[in-house]
Amino acid sequence: MSRVFNFSAGPAAIPDAVLERVRGDIPDWNGTGMSVMEISHRSKDFLGVAAKAEQDVRDLLAIPDNYSVLFAQGGATLQFAMVPLNLAAKGDTVDYVLTGTWSKKAIAEAENHCRVNIAADASPGNFTDIPPEDTWRRSDEAAYLHYTPNETIAGVEFQFVPDVGDTPLVADMSSCILSRPIDVSQFGVIYAGAQKNIGPAGLTLVIVRNDFLSRARASIPSLLRYSVYAESDSMSNTPPVFAWYVAGLVFEYLKDLGGLAAMAEINERKSAKLYAAIDKSDFYSNPVSKDCRSWMNVTFVLKDSSLDAKFLTESKAAGLTNLKGHRSVGGMRASIYNAVPEAAVDALIDFMRDFEQSNGWGRTSVSN
Amino acid sequence: MSRVFNFSAGPAAIPDAVLERVRGDIPDWNGTGMSVMEISHRSKDFLGVAAKAEQDVRDLLAIPDNYSVLFAQGGATLQFAMVPLNLAAKGDTVDYVLTGTWSKKAIAEAENHCRVNIAADASPGNFTDIPPEDTWRRSDEAAYLHYTPNETIAGVEFQFVPDVGDTPLVADMSSCILSRPIDVSQFGVIYAGAQKNIGPAGLTLVIVRNDFLSRARASIPSLLRYSVYAESDSMSNTPPVFAWYVAGLVFEYLKDLGGLAAMAEINERKSAKLYAAIDKSDFYSNPVSKDCRSWMNVTFVLKDSSLDAKFLTESKAAGLTNLKGHRSVGGMRASIYNAVPEAAVDALIDFMRDFEQSNGWGRTSVSN
Repeated sequence: MSRVFNFSAGPAAIPDAVLERVRGDIPDWNGTGMSVMEISHRSKDFLGVAAKAEQDVRDLLAIPDNYSVLFAQGGATLQFAMVPLNLAAKGDTVDYVLTGTWSKKAIAEAENHCRVNIAADASPGNFTDIPPEDTWRRSDEAAYLHYTPNETIAGVEFQFVPDVGDTPLVADMSSCILSRPIDVSQFGVIYAGAQKNIGPAGLTLVIVRNDFLSRARASIPSLLRYSVYAESDSMSNTPPVFAWYVAGLVFEYLKDLGGLAAMAEINERKSAKLYAAIDKSDFYSNPVSKDCRSWMNVTFVLKDSSLDAKFLTESKAAGLTNLKGHRSVGGMRASIYNAVPEAAVDALIDFMRDFEQSNGWGRTSVSN
Repeated sequence: MSRVFNFSAGPAAIPDAVLERVRGDIPDWNGTGMSVMEISHRSKDFLGVAAKAEQDVRDLLAIPDNYSVLFAQGGATLQFAMVPLNLAAKGDTVDYVLTGTWSKKAIAEAENHCRVNIAADASPGNFTDIPPEDTWRRSDEAAYLHYTPNETIAGVEFQFVPDVGDTPLVADMSSCILSRPIDVSQFGVIYAGAQKNIGPAGLTLVIVRNDFLSRARASIPSLLRYSVYAESDSMSNTPPVFAWYVAGLVFEYLKDLGGLAAMAEINERKSAKLYAAIDKSDFYSNPVSKDCRSWMNVTFVLKDSSLDAKFLTESKAAGLTNLKGHRSVGGMRASIYNAVPEAAVDALIDFMRDFEQSNGWGRTSVSN
């Protein structure tokens, strides 16, 4: 076994301890003589896995009883359509906050199903900041307001929860769920693709306040209807049992570590030291406003972009993988989700310092 | 390791050799220092996995070049909606053949989106036979005809492909795909949830003739549109990378075994010997017409249903698991997909004979 430090934006690192259990459960899980991939979702064994996973994520996020927890497929992208189809009627106006690539995609899907008002638009600043809340142009009668608390590509994160009064608040938390405690009661719907902080791709966690279960449009496909999941414990059809089981192991692992308060402390520390290393250097820089820098996706560019390829080759050789920034923005991105240990961040900082020095910058260059 | 013979209807058995590779690839796949669960779908490594899986399934099924192979989520249930949304306009008539629980569910979803004509209805015979093709009442202008080649619950399988002339033929092959060679050119769309003959639940294989890629209705969610998958190599959003990888290992395994002609020979033999054992007994019986008995799901009932619980307890103790029939029909069901070895069927037949004898029937009872 030779593990690397994996900074992938998603599918992303899974805790070593979880992978160890997954490996140990193949091909004989729990004395059943089968792997989890091979058991019926309606078996007593799997129902236990499913129920425990739900309870553990309820515990982690302190989800109130008047919220349903759904395990779906299709990732955030399917939620982009399911949110308007479940929460808004055809002519309704819905508010969206545009802060990056992912909110842009959410808006494009919503426009198929209702009238979208862009309440705030961060594109003039090239998605490096979040427009102050007092500048938002919200609709009077919006069916909901949708925002993306963490934008994975630019590395921008809301450090506050929008105050939208009685308007239901909908959040795509794909890349920040479970990274810190949240107050679920502030939200109408929270959804998250699993492949960053939850588990393998192919699973979507949806948390819905129960009064939003009964507003779906008539004649939509059953798997696009929140109530179908809520009424069947997410088993109206065959769910992705293996991904659900791994998610359950991750939830258990996070509880054992001390829950989300403990994770928040670690995540804040990890990101703070990486941003500090970037900021004190003239070789690297991060363009994001300091009040909305992401804890999960730390982006940075090299002053001399002709060194990008070398940086990627040498970092990979040093066991630091998937640091290439998204093709739409270039540069580098270190995704430091829950499963990326603090040691990975320390190793990256060391590598960045050495790379800077060996390329004629930093302390070495000063002394020349 | 203590493996059982797993007769689960789905999620179902995965070949031991495939599980062995999956286990070996955790936590370091292919020298990457990561498991497959942790790698970006856009990484060179995964693109290789995805392309090889597609090529292997194209080889296995001899899929013509004018068909696209899509890897989706949501199982057959989401296809129940995607088929009408992609192939039929709102007022169009579509033909459905009703042969069991799964075609019934397909019909219910289609009725949300078009006018459904039931071309044939096997419910009067309690889904134990398939109405002869010359009795079908097909529409003149059907956008397509949909049928379910294998009904998992009653254990009924078409041993012929309907001759529908120019009408596009759509088949839900979830529980029979890859069990024998088929002539893909006879079909407009073939779809299959992975969790029986392909791999882990959470992946759907869709094979679409290319002229059906451009007929989707306006303003449907992007993930419900076949063309979105075809144009993005099924990566318009994050696909279920792990399930896709396991499916690829299964395809490779089947090719190594000699492909679908070899599998058909084995599958026919496995089912024939199990049906023969049932038919020669007065203790067990199978209600399905002999011309449409499933190769994949062999159902049987005990003459004395008060022995059902004992049969299930003792078979499980003997390492033969998941033999309970679907709750809607009762009795027993042995799902003997590709990954269930012939030795499992032999062991089941032996167990059934012993159980019959030790419960006062069969040869022992005759000699009393």
